[in-house]
Amino acid sequence: MTSTPVNASVDPKVLQEVLDGRWAHVRRDARENLDDPEMLPVYGETMQEARDRVTRMSKKLADSGRVVLGFPKEYGGQDDSGGSVTSIEMVAFNDLSIMVKTGVQWGLFGGALQLLGSKRQHDEYLRDVMSFELPGCFAMTETGHGSDVQQLRTTCTYDPATQCFDLHTPHQAARKDYIGNAAKDGRMAVVFAQLISQGTNHGVHAWLVPIRDEHGNPMPGVTIGDDGPKAGLPGVDNGRLSFDHVQVPRDMLLDRYGQVAEDGTYTSSIENETRRFFTMLGTLVRGRVSVGGSAGSATKLALDIAVRYGDVRRQFAAPGEDREIVINDYLVHQRKLLPALAKTYALHFAQGELVETMHDVQTAVHVHGQEIDEQAQRELESRAAGLKVAQTAHATATIQMCREACGGAGYLQENRLPHLKADTDVFTTFEGDNTVLLQLVAKGLLTGYRDAFGSLDGWGRVGFVADMVRETVLERTAARALIQRLVDAVPGRDDEVPMLDRGWQLKMFEFREKHSLEGAIRRLRKNAGTDGMAPFDMFNSVQDHVLTTAQTHIERIVLEAFVAGVDRTEDEAAKVLLDKLCDLYALSTLEADKAWFLEHGRLTPARAKLLTATVNQLVRELRPHMITLVDAFAIPAHWKAAAILEEEPGRQEAMAARDAEPRAQNGGGTVEGTATDLDVPPGQ
Amino acid sequence: MTSTPVNASVDPKVLQEVLDGRWAHVRRDARENLDDPEMLPVYGETMQEARDRVTRMSKKLADSGRVVLGFPKEYGGQDDSGGSVTSIEMVAFNDLSIMVKTGVQWGLFGGALQLLGSKRQHDEYLRDVMSFELPGCFAMTETGHGSDVQQLRTTCTYDPATQCFDLHTPHQAARKDYIGNAAKDGRMAVVFAQLISQGTNHGVHAWLVPIRDEHGNPMPGVTIGDDGPKAGLPGVDNGRLSFDHVQVPRDMLLDRYGQVAEDGTYTSSIENETRRFFTMLGTLVRGRVSVGGSAGSATKLALDIAVRYGDVRRQFAAPGEDREIVINDYLVHQRKLLPALAKTYALHFAQGELVETMHDVQTAVHVHGQEIDEQAQRELESRAAGLKVAQTAHATATIQMCREACGGAGYLQENRLPHLKADTDVFTTFEGDNTVLLQLVAKGLLTGYRDAFGSLDGWGRVGFVADMVRETVLERTAARALIQRLVDAVPGRDDEVPMLDRGWQLKMFEFREKHSLEGAIRRLRKNAGTDGMAPFDMFNSVQDHVLTTAQTHIERIVLEAFVAGVDRTEDEAAKVLLDKLCDLYALSTLEADKAWFLEHGRLTPARAKLLTATVNQLVRELRPHMITLVDAFAIPAHWKAAAILEEEPGRQEAMAARDAEPRAQNGGGTVEGTATDLDVPPGQ
Repeated sequence: MTSTPVNASVDPKVLQEVLDGRWAHVRRDARENLDDPEMLPVYGETMQEARDRVTRMSKKLADSGRVVLGFPKEYGGQDDSGGSVTSIEMVAFNDLSIMVKTGVQWGLFGGALQLLGSKRQHDEYLRDVMSFELPGCFAMTETGHGSDVQQLRTTCTYDPATQCFDLHTPHQAARKDYIGNAAKDGRMAVVFAQLISQGTNHGVHAWLVPIRDEHGNPMPGVTIGDDGPKAGLPGVDNGRLSFDHVQVPRDMLLDRYGQVAEDGTYTSSIENETRRFFTMLGTLVRGRVSVGGSAGSATKLALDIAVRYGDVRRQFAAPGEDREIVINDYLVHQRKLLPALAKTYALHFAQGELVETMHDVQTAVHVHGQEIDEQAQRELESRAAGLKVAQTAHATATIQMCREACGGAGYLQENRLPHLKADTDVFTTFEGDNTVLLQLVAKGLLTGYRDAFGSLDGWGRVGFVADMVRETVLERTAARALIQRLVDAVPGRDDEVPMLDRGWQLKMFEFREKHSLEGAIRRLRKNAGTDGMAPFDMFNSVQDHVLTTAQTHIERIVLEAFVAGVDRTEDEAAKVLLDKLCDLYALSTLEADKAWFLEHGRLTPARAKLLTATVNQLVRELRPHMITLVDAFAIPAHWKAAAILEEEPGRQEAMAARDAEPRAQNGGGTVEGTATDLDVPPGQ
Repeated sequence: MTSTPVNASVDPKVLQEVLDGRWAHVRRDARENLDDPEMLPVYGETMQEARDRVTRMSKKLADSGRVVLGFPKEYGGQDDSGGSVTSIEMVAFNDLSIMVKTGVQWGLFGGALQLLGSKRQHDEYLRDVMSFELPGCFAMTETGHGSDVQQLRTTCTYDPATQCFDLHTPHQAARKDYIGNAAKDGRMAVVFAQLISQGTNHGVHAWLVPIRDEHGNPMPGVTIGDDGPKAGLPGVDNGRLSFDHVQVPRDMLLDRYGQVAEDGTYTSSIENETRRFFTMLGTLVRGRVSVGGSAGSATKLALDIAVRYGDVRRQFAAPGEDREIVINDYLVHQRKLLPALAKTYALHFAQGELVETMHDVQTAVHVHGQEIDEQAQRELESRAAGLKVAQTAHATATIQMCREACGGAGYLQENRLPHLKADTDVFTTFEGDNTVLLQLVAKGLLTGYRDAFGSLDGWGRVGFVADMVRETVLERTAARALIQRLVDAVPGRDDEVPMLDRGWQLKMFEFREKHSLEGAIRRLRKNAGTDGMAPFDMFNSVQDHVLTTAQTHIERIVLEAFVAGVDRTEDEAAKVLLDKLCDLYALSTLEADKAWFLEHGRLTPARAKLLTATVNQLVRELRPHMITLVDAFAIPAHWKAAAILEEEPGRQEAMAARDAEPRAQNGGGTVEGTATDLDVPPGQ
């Protein structure tokens, strides 16, 4: 579409404004005021020291009011759901243990109380939760059930005689596991268990359960274990909880979606048990949104470090020259860093859209008291799941790449990357395992949002495949008119359209998703018609195809968000730069799946080669703007905690000196132009 | 070639024998006798505790005689170069800090003394090095120069008046960095620096330099720093060394390849400075071979854990059934684990070949005193570099995948995977950065081994491109006759050959390498003929292509080694199983690069789709043999240190109980066949 050269003088501040978006004030506040050195990871501290520091900092964050934006105004919050997740995203530039601890206390524990509890329960507990006077846990996962939480084994059985529930862990695999805040701080937990009353199981519900007394000792019947050291997140006290017939008073049930009367009669406004359970889970979407956003922050910080290091690190002299090459000038180094940077921008725009959607949906229901718009809610959950997958997988891959791009320096804790890697590593499997979430996204695509609720119960039956919507209609994201216009403008013979045509790029993403989805439906339907095929095999034989479909869907959503972000950029120079970066995201994503387009006749071999050449051309064009692109993340220097970025006078002088002198006392004359001249790549 | 079904009763012991190979006795000895619990990582220990334990264990290993197999018999070794790297590979199943410490002391420090030093130096120091009485460092890398070590800035200037060298660190970027054994234990270091005498720089040489006195205090003029905590390897005391005009007696120069007379006259049997330097480096190839082998051990252990866990972990019920699915039964889980397992086998066979080659080359020179066969030596170095890249990249990707495949359990240190990930993470960038090593492999391919030495000096000149060998001849590995026969048997119209035909697979690998290499040469030549193109840009614009070529070369070498390994397997059942696993390695490797074959007309779209279907078919067929395949690694239970694999009665009962009971007190009847039935994937 455009081959406008990028103006060298793009002001990173202008780019930053574009990125900062609707909650710019929350970001600004954090950058300016979140400056306690104890908020940063301390290299070499023990687990116990890390836990103590993180507890102290959590209290401090509570006092700052920064992490409770999402709670109701009447309890001292701001009713600002979007602000609360943006705030967590900013905390995530600091020690990620603090982000996770924050997410557990105010996102999961506090969020469950807020969204599943009653007014009476809010009155009694919410202020103490917000102030961290009452540290709490979100006790859902069990050792034996993490993904399939509808099948939790913990039971909570009502007895009208005592007006209490009997909370019980029937065997070791049913113990609550990996529970944040449990090993050290938690005084209360929101415990998820099967609600049984009058001999009937009504499915999973949640209770407020005291787990420690004021002296920090476990409550009677509660056994608390410690998950011990982990790969990362040393400051988070993950633990295990078991319950031996613990008596829980009737009014501790978080009963917004299901109530038990004194005599044990169960009532709920949602009759279907599965639908009720997923409605309850659905209100907790903020957790997934926060993890995605925080993964984005960690990725930005890793790229900030690797890009700046790559801009001063030199290795190997150019042929016939004394001066050594800056490693950002090597093609393969650009190939590593720039597509990752482009995708980070793309995901940032998609995350921004998601947060706005979440804010609007949650504000309507929880602030303005409107009915849940089920379609909007399902779409929100699907987007949150999909983007959580994309952000966390990207974080894992990109932080790893940045570590390697910094060589030996990247392996030292003092340079931050080891912490970023270790701390974020669990993001791909907590708050929903990525593979399971991809399947969730795929399910949404297969049934279509509109009738998701109606057909949920039918998923186990083979028949569902035959009933499935034949015509697949892609949901458009924001800027749908713009995107439709761009796509429509592409001529039919699209193999002659320039690859920088945004409409062509969009059309390729769209075609791939639609074709992949239709293929999956066709295969499922064929399996359903195959005699003697076990229902499990019908799905399992297509599982890889189904997950790929979800992946292509997410990539399209992300591209559309990037396109919309470029479109609303007003500054012309910034717009040209973002436009080129968007080209790189689009084309490097297509390049990674080149085989698919070749297989499906949407790229000729010649076009496929051109695609690679175009990506190479784009990284060359973007090379001069790498620093601008990380500057725009506006990560304050006091958050970075990476020794290689510090302006030590000694270090800088040494770097300068090293460049200046070709080689100390080189009298031999046989050194220049040697075998190593082709040994030109980056690394330590 | 074969579609023989695999017999279910393959004996893992038979497979193990095939894998154990020539140094089976070394492996057996380690499995049976290396059983000190302190050899395993301790979860949650401090860096200081880890360092102390690893030092203790290093001493113990020295006493066992296990790590000094490679030293000369006259000093108490075995002259068994292959045995020594096999021994390190076995140590690597224990705490990897011990492996690295071992590698530093006996591989790098001891190896440099052995291979670069004189008889007199051996007599004086070798026994103390072998016994760990004299802990030492290999001080090559500088903060500013890690990859381009020919450009080290440390100088060592001879003064005939004092009969001493003056060893000096001219500025901070020239300090030695990341040096193992430096921060705590090292008493001596092999220091690499520019040798200057009579005003002439003779290039990089190595000296034995005392760095601490018997009380552990730094020697005069030596400054020792600590690299502090790292991502992993807490037991290795990496540090920094700077020298302020340290006086080093003349006889401390390791002078096998270059000597300085009393008057300062420099002599060497190798006149060309670059060639001399690379000859010296070449003798140290054992380090790279050991890192590759150790990466293989860590990968095997991670797979052992993930495969066994996946075989008992259940999540989500099949439609219409109570019993939950074992996650190894999910297609996408098989897709994650099995190709990784196949590649691990492939790399094991390739590593075995490499160790044999290394042993034979080094034994000829260092035991039997033969002249260096330069072609054999260059080929060995290229293989070692290529396989180090392949093994370590595979370790990084596979251990990450295994961590994720174990969900939350995989994030806990008690389950070993976090240590495996963190400890091996540096393998991709130390002992040669993988990107730099790929370039080294590519350089070998571009010039051909035969004239590598002759043309080395010409590499800086543009002219070299025009002189390059036009006809690319692929080097054959072991079993070359067999492989040639298989390839020759493939008919010309190879798009009709079944994909399980081994000859077709080999031919595809071979075609890709040859075509890619020829393309790179063509592009380099074109650049050389382009007026005004800077020499750096001539190479840089093709850098991605050149590295890809190296990658395809390594993959072919590895496939050929696997094919040879299958061929020499005598047990028929084992052979059939290995054959199928070899199919999976070949086809999943081709699948990963499907786009290339489509672009180059070697796969039709229909064949490309068939390729994916065939890989799916292979993982299904291999599913029942997953446990056998990890059993054959024969990793003793006492080395695993993973809580999830332990046979705790409580845990196993709970697992069994969980499977037996569909759901505690399920009276509602609305639970089975619910929305989650398609939510079938693995994860926590």
